[in-house]
Amino acid sequence: MTAHLPFALWLSSGGGLKLPLVMLLVFGSAKLLAEFFEMLGQPGIVGEIIAGVVLGPSVLGWLTPDTFLTSLADLGVMFLLFRVGLEVKSSELIRVGGAALLVAVCGVIVPFVLGWAILQAWGAPSLECIFLGASMTATSVGITAQVLSSKGFLQQKASRIILAAAVIDDVLGLLVLAVVSSLAKGRIKTLDIVLTTVLASAFVIIVAHWGTRTMRHLVPRVAERLRVSEAEFALAICLLFALGLLAMYAGVAAIVGAFLAGMAIGESVGPRVHTLMHGATELLVPFFLVCLGLRINLSVFSTPSTLLLGAIVLTAALISKLIGCGLVSLPFGRREALKIGVGMIPRGEVGMVVAQLGLTMEILSQQVYGIVVFMTIATTIVSPPLIKLAFQERVSTASSCEPLQACLED
Amino acid sequence: MTAHLPFALWLSSGGGLKLPLVMLLVFGSAKLLAEFFEMLGQPGIVGEIIAGVVLGPSVLGWLTPDTFLTSLADLGVMFLLFRVGLEVKSSELIRVGGAALLVAVCGVIVPFVLGWAILQAWGAPSLECIFLGASMTATSVGITAQVLSSKGFLQQKASRIILAAAVIDDVLGLLVLAVVSSLAKGRIKTLDIVLTTVLASAFVIIVAHWGTRTMRHLVPRVAERLRVSEAEFALAICLLFALGLLAMYAGVAAIVGAFLAGMAIGESVGPRVHTLMHGATELLVPFFLVCLGLRINLSVFSTPSTLLLGAIVLTAALISKLIGCGLVSLPFGRREALKIGVGMIPRGEVGMVVAQLGLTMEILSQQVYGIVVFMTIATTIVSPPLIKLAFQERVSTASSCEPLQACLED
Repeated sequence: MTAHLPFALWLSSGGGLKLPLVMLLVFGSAKLLAEFFEMLGQPGIVGEIIAGVVLGPSVLGWLTPDTFLTSLADLGVMFLLFRVGLEVKSSELIRVGGAALLVAVCGVIVPFVLGWAILQAWGAPSLECIFLGASMTATSVGITAQVLSSKGFLQQKASRIILAAAVIDDVLGLLVLAVVSSLAKGRIKTLDIVLTTVLASAFVIIVAHWGTRTMRHLVPRVAERLRVSEAEFALAICLLFALGLLAMYAGVAAIVGAFLAGMAIGESVGPRVHTLMHGATELLVPFFLVCLGLRINLSVFSTPSTLLLGAIVLTAALISKLIGCGLVSLPFGRREALKIGVGMIPRGEVGMVVAQLGLTMEILSQQVYGIVVFMTIATTIVSPPLIKLAFQERVSTASSCEPLQACLED
Repeated sequence: MTAHLPFALWLSSGGGLKLPLVMLLVFGSAKLLAEFFEMLGQPGIVGEIIAGVVLGPSVLGWLTPDTFLTSLADLGVMFLLFRVGLEVKSSELIRVGGAALLVAVCGVIVPFVLGWAILQAWGAPSLECIFLGASMTATSVGITAQVLSSKGFLQQKASRIILAAAVIDDVLGLLVLAVVSSLAKGRIKTLDIVLTTVLASAFVIIVAHWGTRTMRHLVPRVAERLRVSEAEFALAICLLFALGLLAMYAGVAAIVGAFLAGMAIGESVGPRVHTLMHGATELLVPFFLVCLGLRINLSVFSTPSTLLLGAIVLTAALISKLIGCGLVSLPFGRREALKIGVGMIPRGEVGMVVAQLGLTMEILSQQVYGIVVFMTIATTIVSPPLIKLAFQERVSTASSCEPLQACLED
């Protein structure tokens, strides 16, 4: 690694030189590897994450996720979810709400139990087992959303269930985080946890339910009066950040607010705003994906036992969501169950936050912490091809379940 | 100011909370004040800079131009110049090259002499006089480009002369910077200065001359083979950062590279890429404008004498470019001369770099340094309404000079 240090130093020094170089390195390498993966018939998104792994500490060590890159990454995933929200109708999402709640809850319970059991069998202390279980629960919808959106699968019913379940999952993730951090401090503040959950749920339900009609009423009237150029676009951006911010105050992730903002304003703005938003999103999303890859550090697998535990945890992470979310989706047909199960696999921020908390509280060992980070990123690398497979092939089979789906919809 | 400190602290603390809040504050307040200024019949761009003055140390003190905001601002002005480049043909720019060279050279000499003379008359040491003169020389094209682009004036001949002159001005600015930093160190390295100038000029001439045909040859062939989504857009972004980077290595500003990149690729990409780029630009440009405003600190004007000197320097900055660039443009007609003179008024980075150098070398007093920063920003606030006036009114008069323009064009 030291051989690359001069280049890394040269990158970070020299002030002015840095910006276009960093931008070119991140954006260019992401698109280069995306192209390579598309040539292999794989989703380009995997290439963009791998670009981060290559640029990061695991291989070249040229970049670290500093404030600037992390902020661009956070913006990238917010814009991504906003764009996905633009394409989704809130009424359709609310209609699948019941099924999505079931999918989300089982998708939290099964991974938790499996993660806990694995570390129990490995002989770890019980608090560490709980933390590993907790870190495996929360789905991160960014990766799935990007695959569904870029491959044109967003209008499928399974996609809507995944999106609704992922939003609910985020509220559940908040709950899990509240419970484990209480456990770590030795006492559970029930009232706090209940209040937090109520606040977060209320935010999601209110915006999902009334957002669209409010915007349909407001946006045309306001945009018509504004003299500033691209007024609808400016309104959309302001709503994106305002709901992202409110979401954080309500306790859920900013990306949930961004998704709700997109959904609320989607029917009120013209196609030009969609294209303009698409431009900003296309610029920023590679930073989100590359930063995921930058966070992985393969040097954690220095011993065979870590490698074994890593493999077991990753396998458990994959099959637990598949089983947890898939089994309860079986009434929609096996194909739809597979789509939903696979779509819920990618993990993200919440898992890393739990692991980070566990590490600072000295509950998780450095080894298990590294494995959690590896598991989080590895699920995002493994799932895009699986999602593409599940959604793309044998589309005709899925339609045979439609009578069943129709009667389940009400 | 201290009354606002808790809010400022709350903004900068809490890690995760910061991003959507900062984005909303900057973008939202910029658009709000832009709307207000448009209502008053003034260019919105002035409102966006004033938003920065309000958020910055002069009024509320809520934001400082940190690494993240500064980087977004740098990206904003790069995207802005790239978008302007997209709308300009290199052949048209090269055709006005001779006139532009004259405009640029006189636009450097007159402000330098006037700035130097003012401080001489004020009784300052001669090196300080040279530094003030030098800090008044370089035009920054970002503001003018934004006004010309947003008001649809880019296709006018005067706009092309301004853009070409601004690019040449940047090379001259580099020269001025090299000379004054040599002076500050006590000896002039002639060979170094000549080499730097040759390198910078060669970069600009080569890219302006061969860029368009190279891209017209390359882009369709490459984009056709790529499987990655929005391939043309990805190529455009990569070219933007690559030429921005090369420009910096060649010694000119990244925005000159960005402008040349836009010009090179403008004829090779479809209208969709223009709209996508427009989306990214619309998101980022407010950060460039707000950051300009954030840099001003009105508290420098604590004494009447500073206020007087500030007013004199600002007036000199305005009329020196107007005279320097306007007089040599008189053959194009008085109206065109006025447009060109006004369009070259805004100052930017180079002036601040010279002033910063003067301050660290203890050549400039804190007072004069503050005045230079004020002058730089104030020229960007004053010129948009002037540019709008000069370009908008009595368009019929301008066309009467067309026969003269036509014979001057070859």
